[in-house]
Amino acid sequence: MQFLSDNAAPVHPAVWAAMAAADDTDRPYDADALSARLDERFSLLFEQECAVLWTSTGTAANCIALACLVPPYGGIVCHSEAHIEVDEGGAPGFFTHGAKLLLAPGEGAKLTPQAIAQIIDPVRDDVHQVQPHAIAITQASEYGQVYTPGELHRIGAYANMRKLRLHMDGARFANAVAYLGCSPAQASAAHGVDTLAFGFIKNGGMSAEALVFFDPSLAAQARYRRKRAGQLQSKGRFMAAQLLSMLEADLWLHNARHANAAAGELAGGARDRLLRKVEANEVFMTLSAPEAAALRAQGFSFYDWGENAVRFVTCWNTRAEDAAALARAIAAL
Amino acid sequence: MQFLSDNAAPVHPAVWAAMAAADDTDRPYDADALSARLDERFSLLFEQECAVLWTSTGTAANCIALACLVPPYGGIVCHSEAHIEVDEGGAPGFFTHGAKLLLAPGEGAKLTPQAIAQIIDPVRDDVHQVQPHAIAITQASEYGQVYTPGELHRIGAYANMRKLRLHMDGARFANAVAYLGCSPAQASAAHGVDTLAFGFIKNGGMSAEALVFFDPSLAAQARYRRKRAGQLQSKGRFMAAQLLSMLEADLWLHNARHANAAAGELAGGARDRLLRKVEANEVFMTLSAPEAAALRAQGFSFYDWGENAVRFVTCWNTRAEDAAALARAIAAL
Amino acid sequence: MQFLSDNAAPVHPAVWAAMAAADDTDRPYDADALSARLDERFSLLFEQECAVLWTSTGTAANCIALACLVPPYGGIVCHSEAHIEVDEGGAPGFFTHGAKLLLAPGEGAKLTPQAIAQIIDPVRDDVHQVQPHAIAITQASEYGQVYTPGELHRIGAYANMRKLRLHMDGARFANAVAYLGCSPAQASAAHGVDTLAFGFIKNGGMSAEALVFFDPSLAAQARYRRKRAGQLQSKGRFMAAQLLSMLEADLWLHNARHANAAAGELAGGARDRLLRKVEANEVFMTLSAPEAAALRAQGFSFYDWGENAVRFVTCWNTRAEDAAALARAIAAL
Amino acid sequence: MQFLSDNAAPVHPAVWAAMAAADDTDRPYDADALSARLDERFSLLFEQECAVLWTSTGTAANCIALACLVPPYGGIVCHSEAHIEVDEGGAPGFFTHGAKLLLAPGEGAKLTPQAIAQIIDPVRDDVHQVQPHAIAITQASEYGQVYTPGELHRIGAYANMRKLRLHMDGARFANAVAYLGCSPAQASAAHGVDTLAFGFIKNGGMSAEALVFFDPSLAAQARYRRKRAGQLQSKGRFMAAQLLSMLEADLWLHNARHANAAAGELAGGARDRLLRKVEANEVFMTLSAPEAAALRAQGFSFYDWGENAVRFVTCWNTRAEDAAALARAIAAL
Repeated sequence: MQFLSDNAAPVHPAVWAAMAAADDTDRPYDADALSARLDERFSLLFEQECAVLWTSTGTAANCIALACLVPPYGGIVCHSEAHIEVDEGGAPGFFTHGAKLLLAPGEGAKLTPQAIAQIIDPVRDDVHQVQPHAIAITQASEYGQVYTPGELHRIGAYANMRKLRLHMDGARFANAVAYLGCSPAQASAAHGVDTLAFGFIKNGGMSAEALVFFDPSLAAQARYRRKRAGQLQSKGRFMAAQLLSMLEADLWLHNARHANAAAGELAGGARDRLLRKVEANEVFMTLSAPEAAALRAQGFSFYDWGENAVRFVTCWNTRAEDAAALARAIAAL
Repeated sequence: MQFLSDNAAPVHPAVWAAMAAADDTDRPYDADALSARLDERFSLLFEQECAVLWTSTGTAANCIALACLVPPYGGIVCHSEAHIEVDEGGAPGFFTHGAKLLLAPGEGAKLTPQAIAQIIDPVRDDVHQVQPHAIAITQASEYGQVYTPGELHRIGAYANMRKLRLHMDGARFANAVAYLGCSPAQASAAHGVDTLAFGFIKNGGMSAEALVFFDPSLAAQARYRRKRAGQLQSKGRFMAAQLLSMLEADLWLHNARHANAAAGELAGGARDRLLRKVEANEVFMTLSAPEAAALRAQGFSFYDWGENAVRFVTCWNTRAEDAAALARAIAAL
Repeated sequence: MQFLSDNAAPVHPAVWAAMAAADDTDRPYDADALSARLDERFSLLFEQECAVLWTSTGTAANCIALACLVPPYGGIVCHSEAHIEVDEGGAPGFFTHGAKLLLAPGEGAKLTPQAIAQIIDPVRDDVHQVQPHAIAITQASEYGQVYTPGELHRIGAYANMRKLRLHMDGARFANAVAYLGCSPAQASAAHGVDTLAFGFIKNGGMSAEALVFFDPSLAAQARYRRKRAGQLQSKGRFMAAQLLSMLEADLWLHNARHANAAAGELAGGARDRLLRKVEANEVFMTLSAPEAAALRAQGFSFYDWGENAVRFVTCWNTRAEDAAALARAIAAL
Repeated sequence: MQFLSDNAAPVHPAVWAAMAAADDTDRPYDADALSARLDERFSLLFEQECAVLWTSTGTAANCIALACLVPPYGGIVCHSEAHIEVDEGGAPGFFTHGAKLLLAPGEGAKLTPQAIAQIIDPVRDDVHQVQPHAIAITQASEYGQVYTPGELHRIGAYANMRKLRLHMDGARFANAVAYLGCSPAQASAAHGVDTLAFGFIKNGGMSAEALVFFDPSLAAQARYRRKRAGQLQSKGRFMAAQLLSMLEADLWLHNARHANAAAGELAGGARDRLLRKVEANEVFMTLSAPEAAALRAQGFSFYDWGENAVRFVTCWNTRAEDAAALARAIAAL
């Protein structure tokens, strides 16, 4: 039973079906009929005009967005444990041509205006220091923590006041919305987010993420940047098909609710071991090395996450009984 | 009936089947069991040790290769009509951090040692001029022309003599091999090619190209560059599955032979209009605007290719009778 | 007697004097009193508001300007023999992060709207091709040819119509103005030039060029780009001093007139050998290898410039009698 | 009396004299007779073969060196308060094409093998994380602290063991050598330093720093990188002249000893206020805002350095009596 990663999960049958249905001849790149529907479909979802590009990875979606928001000589405030800082192999430096990540602290890998101010207030307003141009936050965060609409509102207002652009890494945006029970807009665009890397791959997709511009004027340059980065696939209709199928009947939301519920099931059985409140589909727990080994011997797979700690990830297809079984196995340690 | 682009063609059933079979849980990124088999499988095909990475576009495969071969301050000799010069949105400049394309002439978009020498001999050996570090050729060329083993041998020997690296853009490498009737190695690696972007997408694949290193020592840096470029997909097993299925029972070669044969059928019916000898799956013809319109009115789709000229592309699934019908329609103009 | 390069000439005594006078303690970088006067002083000269930065080379001035005008994914139309294409070691690719030079033809290394259109009209308006964002011209050109106000006006109007920015490489701008006998503005800014790399080093300076922004709103980012490129010298007062001394009593113009006159003297004595009309301080002549050797044996230094051709450059300090002596020596060949 | 910055100090008369003596006609760029002597002259100084390039700033010297040592996808370990991290406007990101600075802690802005290990040991050896390729240290550090030969030896051995390259930012290398009383080699090259940005501008120069390669095989690419960065001045002989004059009769060392002595004089009069041991020419002191204001009212200029702290810098021309006067003024506060 795998609790390793939502990247390890299979592709949802509806996504397969949509891809198969796209297997007709159509115009190459993003000139196909499906890609042409993305803007409208996401605009409906977010209750405002959007421009949307598919990309093959969240790395690319995040970094194309950042390149549109920040000049090469600028800086981006993010959490010191943000994925773009820690786990994207320096991709932001590549796409932005060397813009600098300015690292802020924050509980649960979440930023606050105070934490951001603590980093950028000391920056001298001169050419010797890299000036902040944008903020990047992750919804849900790298520790599975969710920004509430109120928290987002405060960050958005601060960004606006400081004339900073705001990007959201939404690798697990669906899980955040599922947790909040609010509209997608309330979890993002309504509070001044300029760009969102809306993740679908971890949530039942195969190879398509959505880069959403809430300021559609930025999308024109993004299309050039996407091509230039080798991200413009020639059979793009299979990319668009994945995204559209995930929006159909809110599949993205159902999948995320399922994964969150499984995480809740698991967390509920081991409250005393939890290292973080479980708000999305990641469960961080205290577990000694022998305990972890014992669980693995029972067929559970998962990653260590520092010393005496592990991470379990639940997926759109994690069975409730498997989560319960894992919870019991932990309780029995 | 579409003769627009091999990018517009559907995905081969065997590729679909392989992807479906990969829809098991496996480790993310390229740590899956299928990705692990690529090096060995391609080494068999090319009869020498290879290291192979999947990428989502030929653009990325070409440009990651070039970035491994050439420093940012270096130059790459290519044909003035090469895809990397004309149609990749400046991607080589992005991936190589500004290396320069040095443009050489040549019949049929093919290079010769003489044409290359004509461009690089006048380069002064000083820091004011960008020095050549590599040669990039396209097999088959942008005009569907194929380098013979003899021609490759001469280019490879010249590259070696001038201490230049040699990259091959093989977007239609399969069609070239099908035409030559030689081994894949004889159409590439045997003559000093360092890196090959082996195209599968135009030939029945969906979204996976193979970046092949005949000098495997270059692959380590390529893996970092791929990640950094947002090309390392989290469900990489679906990428590897595509490539492996195309190698199975030489599907790549069968598909290419089929496409080439259809092109031959079409060309055979309109010899007097041919602008180029037809060696792969592209047919360039003289056609006036009214003639082109007449064909389109009959349901044939294709691109204009300059004034009074058009390009027809045949695919792995182009029906012989459709090619024949097009040939007859042209003859009847 | 050196006719090798205006870069080989000495520094003008007035420049030395100004540098010596700046050898007081002052604030570092560009916070000194002299640097603070540049904007005003050049605004007077160009009869409009300017923002001015010193740089240590024309390469840096040109390339910082281009980076301000063109995004990394954009293109810059220039002459195929422009210095930025041929002799700056790929610097434009470095500063712009890979923007592409789009090469146009033109007599005497000068561009016309027609030549520019010939290059950019065929560019398809799609992401697969690099779109033009700016034009770069050289005043005087690499062959010592000068754009008249009328020619500039036509290029400026064309740039405006096509929404392209306009940069002027003015390594020998002074010589062009001296030739035209017009105001500096009429040779540049009055016709829509956005940025000018105004050269002083070849004209009696030591190490300071002026990067002039006729659209001062661009200067803010240029200051960050200059620092980031390692061009912000810590004792910047010596840079500003050079520029200010050259503007004092129009020293720049006097020096250029002197050099032009010497070139005229030289050209006048060898009309039948001239390869180009002599408009600035460069004289291109037909000369066989033995003839060149004979001249060198008499103590004249100069560069070969292709087969059976040479280039003589006159300087602010070239003595009229030396130019005349060279003319006589050539006549006597 | 200025204690603001050694960048604010005048140019030494011997440097002026050398520049004046270079004001003869010579070949442009670095083809002049003086530039040709640099390698030999510095090789003598460092008692081993060196290759040396002049640059116009320490920023450029540091960053060209780093670009030679580290690929774009690599990382450079430096102190979190290193100049390249804090005060070079993101220049390392520009020159290296986005390589990442990995920030280590350390007393007095100095690194130790332990501090470096603390940062790089947790880096997973996979493509998701930027791998360290080099270490950059500052001699003397940003807080005026000097690495002893023993400390350097330990860092060099560690770098060697971890296969990391080692760069030294020597903006105040002269002051470090003056303090140590050892040979220049013992303060750098003897312990595995690959590249040194040897600073002269703060020490009586005008606009030339020396980029020293103790591994001369790296210098070839550096020459291309320097040109491409717009750092190859056309009248380079004035750059070489500055460096050669500073080496003449160990002027660099005399100047540094003088500055250090003045710093010692100043520090000696205010031991109780010192924030750092004074090893070079920087004196960091506790001083309240009113106290600082009082000193400034007496004509002393200096920078605040955080809250209730200031930095005094002494220069090659700081008069002993001025340092003493400042010490007395502080004592009298």
